[in-house]
Amino acid sequence: MAQPSQRQDEPPPQAIHHEQRNAENSAAYFLPKLKSMKEKNPHLTLLDVGAGSGTISITFAKAIPDGHVTATDLNPDILPRAASIAKSEGVTNIEFQQADAYKLPFPDESFDVTHCHQMLCHLKEPWEALREMLRVTKKGGAVAAREADLDTECVWPATEGLLKFHDFTVSLMRSKGGSSNAGRQLLSWALKAGVERGQVTASFGTWCYSAKEDKEVWAQAMAKLLRGGRIRDGALAKGLATEDELEEMAKAWREWQESGEATLGMLHGEIIIQK
Amino acid sequence: MAQPSQRQDEPPPQAIHHEQRNAENSAAYFLPKLKSMKEKNPHLTLLDVGAGSGTISITFAKAIPDGHVTATDLNPDILPRAASIAKSEGVTNIEFQQADAYKLPFPDESFDVTHCHQMLCHLKEPWEALREMLRVTKKGGAVAAREADLDTECVWPATEGLLKFHDFTVSLMRSKGGSSNAGRQLLSWALKAGVERGQVTASFGTWCYSAKEDKEVWAQAMAKLLRGGRIRDGALAKGLATEDELEEMAKAWREWQESGEATLGMLHGEIIIQK
Repeated sequence: MAQPSQRQDEPPPQAIHHEQRNAENSAAYFLPKLKSMKEKNPHLTLLDVGAGSGTISITFAKAIPDGHVTATDLNPDILPRAASIAKSEGVTNIEFQQADAYKLPFPDESFDVTHCHQMLCHLKEPWEALREMLRVTKKGGAVAAREADLDTECVWPATEGLLKFHDFTVSLMRSKGGSSNAGRQLLSWALKAGVERGQVTASFGTWCYSAKEDKEVWAQAMAKLLRGGRIRDGALAKGLATEDELEEMAKAWREWQESGEATLGMLHGEIIIQK
Repeated sequence: MAQPSQRQDEPPPQAIHHEQRNAENSAAYFLPKLKSMKEKNPHLTLLDVGAGSGTISITFAKAIPDGHVTATDLNPDILPRAASIAKSEGVTNIEFQQADAYKLPFPDESFDVTHCHQMLCHLKEPWEALREMLRVTKKGGAVAAREADLDTECVWPATEGLLKFHDFTVSLMRSKGGSSNAGRQLLSWALKAGVERGQVTASFGTWCYSAKEDKEVWAQAMAKLLRGGRIRDGALAKGLATEDELEEMAKAWREWQESGEATLGMLHGEIIIQK
């Protein structure tokens, strides 16, 4: 495993907030099921698709210390960072590799659990990725997925800059072929992937950023993302926002961070498919 | 206590879904705090403001068997039904009385806990009701409030009838002087009532109606409400919908109930104020 370089110690702007994610705050709906599966088989194998910096995958690996996690991402550039985070946390039952969610490089029925988080929302045909996740999952295993529903972003105070940010993120998601209401569609995608309704447990989950430290992480991550990195570059190239508008939005998040009455939440759709 | 009459055994249309509510599904954010307060003082007194049919209040009374619950509502017509539900469940440490949330008929510092659920959203000056709830709460006690954020209603499939229903409920709430985005404003209302930010813990919660039995309860409650009762009468009188539109929406909920891909969620703002 490569030694972490300076670049790997500095997450790219789009990953700053992602690296706050762990199984507890982003996969709580699935943890009871994972625990009961582990009790029957401590040697579970888990595939995490579109894992990015891998912080959720790493907490899964900690939850199944006698099992093994394979974490993939389409973007090979993020993998060294994920590996360096795992190394720094002393987690060894995990490996990282590049993979396309539409064409997972694994045989049928390879894993006990296949998981993704905020991944399907980026795809034009998310049900095809779910079909692929089902293919590589063993009979008797489980597929777990959680997707944000951007349209339900709920922010207060509702300043002009933050309302503009909401419209901006929705446009950005759609401009890349993704879905701004993935959370509510998740169950329908599972059915489209060939699953029976009786195999699926559906829920919604959420979070709240209102405490000082949560607001800091969020506002600073949004400001960095609006002021540099690939999301900014893409938005400017597509004409989704001007430099002035991006700066206005970054400032709006900073003001929000300083406001005592600030809150932020968003619904996430969640499904567990029993294969 | 009056014997339940036939009228009391048939909830009014707006109360059908309300009566599915209990402390577990509607006040989970507050139960750990209530438990720790009860451990220090089993004889807690709890005031539930705007309790309607009282099903949440009754589960609070069960949670503090050596304590006492006072449940109020502005509408005196709902009180006999609430009392009959408590009686049928064998709960005796509870009393019901009519009260205006702006002018609670209790001395200062009367209760250890003051609670409300989906009540402040109906008021023109919700911070004044919070101020009044704080007044009747003992020093060292807690005020807990949870309010829906109607604007975040998240439904799938997004049929024309259900989108119309969303706009209809938002218009109806606003036409009565209420707030369709109460959930996100709850913290700001607490600050406006004179609370310091450090006294408040803020969160968001949600639920998901997607399982067969949940869909049935919701869809049938919405259909009854659209086809009869005071909400229908008020909407027609205010010109917020025609009879045909109300029927279209009722049918849309019935179709939703039959759909395997159906889901419904909504964010709720939640605060606990430490007095």
